[in-house]
Amino acid sequence: MNTKKEKMIPVMEIFGPTVQGEGMVIGQKTMFVRTAGCDYQCAWCDSAFTWDGSAKDEIRRLTAREIVNELKATGGDAFSHVTISGGNPALIRHMGELVEHLHEQNIDVALETQGSIWQDWFLSIDDLTLSPKPPSSKMKPNLQILDDIISRLKDQPSNNYSLKVVVFNDEDLDFAESIHKRYPNVLFFVQTGNNQVHEENDKRLVSDLISRYEWLIDRVMERAALNRVRVLPQLHTYVWGNKRGV
Amino acid sequence: MNTKKEKMIPVMEIFGPTVQGEGMVIGQKTMFVRTAGCDYQCAWCDSAFTWDGSAKDEIRRLTAREIVNELKATGGDAFSHVTISGGNPALIRHMGELVEHLHEQNIDVALETQGSIWQDWFLSIDDLTLSPKPPSSKMKPNLQILDDIISRLKDQPSNNYSLKVVVFNDEDLDFAESIHKRYPNVLFFVQTGNNQVHEENDKRLVSDLISRYEWLIDRVMERAALNRVRVLPQLHTYVWGNKRGV
Ligand code: SF4
Ligand code: SF4
Repeated sequence: MNTKKEKMIPVMEIFGPTVQGEGMVIGQKTMFVRTAGCDYQCAWCDSAFTWDGSAKDEIRRLTAREIVNELKATGGDAFSHVTISGGNPALIRHMGELVEHLHEQNIDVALETQGSIWQDWFLSIDDLTLSPKPPSSKMKPNLQILDDIISRLKDQPSNNYSLKVVVFNDEDLDFAESIHKRYPNVLFFVQTGNNQVHEENDKRLVSDLISRYEWLIDRVMERAALNRVRVLPQLHTYVWGNKRGV
Repeated sequence: MNTKKEKMIPVMEIFGPTVQGEGMVIGQKTMFVRTAGCDYQCAWCDSAFTWDGSAKDEIRRLTAREIVNELKATGGDAFSHVTISGGNPALIRHMGELVEHLHEQNIDVALETQGSIWQDWFLSIDDLTLSPKPPSSKMKPNLQILDDIISRLKDQPSNNYSLKVVVFNDEDLDFAESIHKRYPNVLFFVQTGNNQVHEENDKRLVSDLISRYEWLIDRVMERAALNRVRVLPQLHTYVWGNKRGV
């Protein structure tokens, strides 16, 4: 037992190695650490089990060192990249400790958050994705906080952080365009959403997701304001549907 | 008519804007310029019409300026990125002129080549993909030339160029691993191939391509030598099957 008081991180699941299915390092071999808890409640959240109580018995409070040990036990030596997701992992003030432990072992760290809270350890994340939520989420992002986050990142290498907006409809795409306009020099991704997180028929799901992707491509192609934008799907849903832990 | 003798580029097709479906800037909105002619004859070439004579009546010899004009006429102002592909566009010694014209208009330029020939204008490409061909192609890449190319690129920003190996089988994956080992600091992608370039049933094609992608993910996940690798499909085939010009 540890005599020194160590700080605990609420962990929902640890799994991998698998591919990162989204965003700036899409395709990267990675392990996932998913934290519990979120300050948002997006209408279409695909990780609602991290905050809606439905999986609260699975939440474990682990130290950074315990997380590293479990990553090693699960992934062996077959990974050099860890993605921290949630929920909103930016809720955890002392996450920097985990990032440090991983860096000591030459493991890169990615993190995704909606951008509602700044943490100083953002500066040590290798692939930071800020994903402000569009109108269809029914959330209203605080853009002053996002301004502050982006301005604190301005001395980072430009390929260390990015913005990503999930788009379900034209109103969401207008929101995406306004965000891109606000931060024109930040790597920018738009992504199709999945509003059928309970669909278990993979064939039907994939065919619907591909149609949505084609729709989004068509819309983005029309807009000159979205020339420097990358349009991506959630690749993992094409391969594994709505399964968890892959 | 032009009195100065201008250098001509053999163009197979110009189209877009569409999304880049592969590699280091997957998802990027881009226009495509496909040049004619290749020094290889890969067994599974998905662009054989650029070199096998089957579409030779479609080849046009255009100046750099004519290409820029046609890009503008086709894409309007809805693009800021052009991808030059082939065939092997590195066969064309004076391609640098086109790259310059595009840069003057604040347009980024990507280029894909198998890496069989060096050209000085590689240094001005924004997203350069070198794609040495694996055993299943029945080609034998000259790795001394590739060594030379990589060493000439070493002062470029690391996210300006990448290696990409198409993988159909385990032997190809061994080849990919040997390439990654040879150039461990170069951004590295493995990609599923499409050996059904004449399949017109999109549903069957997509379901087969997704199975291949899952197979490749599984193989890469096992190998610790492939930790810093990104595994991607050809996204455009999921959306448009084998259609040309999208
Ligand atoms: S911010 Fe993310 S985790 Fe939180 S509710 Fe929204 S989609 Fe779910
Ligand atoms: S190098 Fe590319 S264009 Fe040339 S034959 Fe091979 S696949 Fe086709």
